[in-house]
Amino acid sequence: MTVDIAQSNTRGIASLFNSAVAAWAIAAAWEIGALDELHRARTLDTADFADRGGLDPASTTGLFRALSSVGLVRREGTVVTALDGFDEMYRNKSFFHWLARGSAELFQQIPAVLRNENRTGSFYRRDSAAIAFACREIDQVTYAPAFWAAMGRVEFPFTRVADLGCGSGARLMQILDRHPGTTGTGIDIARPALEVARAEADAAGLADRTAFLHGDVLSLEPRPEYADVELLTCFMMGHDFWRDGRRENAIATLRRLREAFPSARRLLIGDATRTDLPDTELPVFTLGFELGHDLMGTFLPTVADWESVFAEGGWELVRTNRIEMTVGEVIFELA
Amino acid sequence: MTVDIAQSNTRGIASLFNSAVAAWAIAAAWEIGALDELHRARTLDTADFADRGGLDPASTTGLFRALSSVGLVRREGTVVTALDGFDEMYRNKSFFHWLARGSAELFQQIPAVLRNENRTGSFYRRDSAAIAFACREIDQVTYAPAFWAAMGRVEFPFTRVADLGCGSGARLMQILDRHPGTTGTGIDIARPALEVARAEADAAGLADRTAFLHGDVLSLEPRPEYADVELLTCFMMGHDFWRDGRRENAIATLRRLREAFPSARRLLIGDATRTDLPDTELPVFTLGFELGHDLMGTFLPTVADWESVFAEGGWELVRTNRIEMTVGEVIFELA
Ligand SMILES: C[S@@+](CC[C@H](N)C(=O)[O-])C[C@H]1O[C@@H](n2cnc3c(N)ncnc32)[C@H](O)[C@@H]1O
Ligand SMILES: C[S@@+](CC[C@H](N)C(=O)[O-])C[C@H]1O[C@@H](n2cnc3c(N)ncnc32)[C@H](O)[C@@H]1O
Repeated sequence: MTVDIAQSNTRGIASLFNSAVAAWAIAAAWEIGALDELHRARTLDTADFADRGGLDPASTTGLFRALSSVGLVRREGTVVTALDGFDEMYRNKSFFHWLARGSAELFQQIPAVLRNENRTGSFYRRDSAAIAFACREIDQVTYAPAFWAAMGRVEFPFTRVADLGCGSGARLMQILDRHPGTTGTGIDIARPALEVARAEADAAGLADRTAFLHGDVLSLEPRPEYADVELLTCFMMGHDFWRDGRRENAIATLRRLREAFPSARRLLIGDATRTDLPDTELPVFTLGFELGHDLMGTFLPTVADWESVFAEGGWELVRTNRIEMTVGEVIFELA
Repeated sequence: MTVDIAQSNTRGIASLFNSAVAAWAIAAAWEIGALDELHRARTLDTADFADRGGLDPASTTGLFRALSSVGLVRREGTVVTALDGFDEMYRNKSFFHWLARGSAELFQQIPAVLRNENRTGSFYRRDSAAIAFACREIDQVTYAPAFWAAMGRVEFPFTRVADLGCGSGARLMQILDRHPGTTGTGIDIARPALEVARAEADAAGLADRTAFLHGDVLSLEPRPEYADVELLTCFMMGHDFWRDGRRENAIATLRRLREAFPSARRLLIGDATRTDLPDTELPVFTLGFELGHDLMGTFLPTVADWESVFAEGGWELVRTNRIEMTVGEVIFELA
């Protein structure tokens, strides 16, 4: 039986290797539109797809050979058919993209990034355009339903909203879209993101209802624009409140927000939290997300960490929504 | 039972994702020496290892969490123990390194590399130092035993050897080392590789028995240094003979070698060849290697392609050694 074990290990190692190739293939096949087409039509001729898109036919077929090697599709020559696992992968494609397109350089450079002597300044690189592409869908897959439910529980009328760490402003614009008569302020530390946000607000006809301001959410001062804001949202950046992993810093930022936004009656914080699952039960995304943040030296608080700072930070925790789909996603509703 | 299937798919997708992370972890853990230490000692304390090496402890533990997530090790806190699959992975670590360290940028950039309009000039990048690091071990794992067996079948005495596409010259120096009284010439198109080769020959005390010459193996002219060479070797570059995938080009190069080396009595060509396995039975390496070469636009001949050109190229095929461990490795013995 030794032979059997060795063989099954060999297959195991091969499938490990092929899975790594498949991760890149999933990310690329999504970006070029091939996954969407296969998802709709259930079958795809890779030669035809390559021809229509001006792509190299052998490489395009090779992407689907990778998906076929791990059982996501069946391939006969250039004709590919979706198998059961395909749909589950399709729902999770944004996580593969985050890993293989957005974060590849960070992971490729692990031997250098690990060294303490290198871990200062900008010691790693990721593809921020690719990350933004993936994050739009990650938000839809993970936070969106619980976010809108939490918005539905805002029991007071509001006219002014601010989104902290607004990125390209999608969330703010969605809120204004659903709440006619409201105006919104987006605050971000990244000027390129603010430019994108302004352009998109323009294109959506929301320019007169939005302002995108440069600012560090960790050290906001009161401003006239902030005085009447009743509703605050902050998604996928709350862990930054915990600079150096210290709860004092999180408390200080929460207090500052109370002062900068004196009329705020609700703060929604949605973010990933550190999980504590056995290694062999890690769902998609968690392992890459947490190793990635360790490599970048970014602290991720647990839900308990968060719950221990709200009162001292001057906020009452109304409700904790544990989404915990992949990376311990949670939305705190604070008053 | 629908739930069961869905769950097992979810686990399948999670293990696909975790395998991709593990591939990077394997490559990095090898390079920092952690795999070797765990292989020897069967157990490793990641905190201690990080401390000794000046490495970030959380990230170092994270690498082994990745290996643990796919069942290669067992982890309790910072203490890691090798499981059965670990040794099989350890034997194959160089393939993971080739993929995750050496070729990551090529695979990350697939969406751009696929476009026909981009596929001219130097349209992709790989980490050549990392590739060289991996290839030294890939050679040991795949070609070495059959190579030395083929050398043992060289039935005539020889004093001059030339290695075509010599890279950093390791093979040439190994030959000279085993055959006292011989001298060798290495030819490569990459000047940095030649510099490394010269430095290593110096360090090995072989400077007076070696010459490393710049040249394109596809268009060598007779030279005095080549006149008396009796034995030619050419490893992991023979597929380049097939420029544009045309057999005429392979034949022309083989003929030229006869003319440039008129005293040559044996030519050993060792290289990967295109395989033809079902997608679901691909061993480690094949999928990445072949997709990588498709992305780079490099033709890989089959064994049959090769066997169809030797006679016309002026060489008699003495023996074909099919190693076919991963990427259709083969060594042809030509006279
Ligand atoms: C992962 S993105 C999330 C964007 C958006 N909130 C969303 O839900 O899609 C994090 C954003 O927070 C911003 N950010 C990070 N630290 C910040 C800080 N200290 N002050 C302001 N913005 C910050 C980044 O520039 C980035 O746009
Ligand atoms: C994969 S490496 C193999 C190195 C070495 N033969 C070995 O077995 O480890 C291929 C080598 O072939 C060289 N090479 C590729 N095309 C060449 C050509 N047309 N003429 C000379 N060298 C070439 C490359 O520069 C590189 O050093």
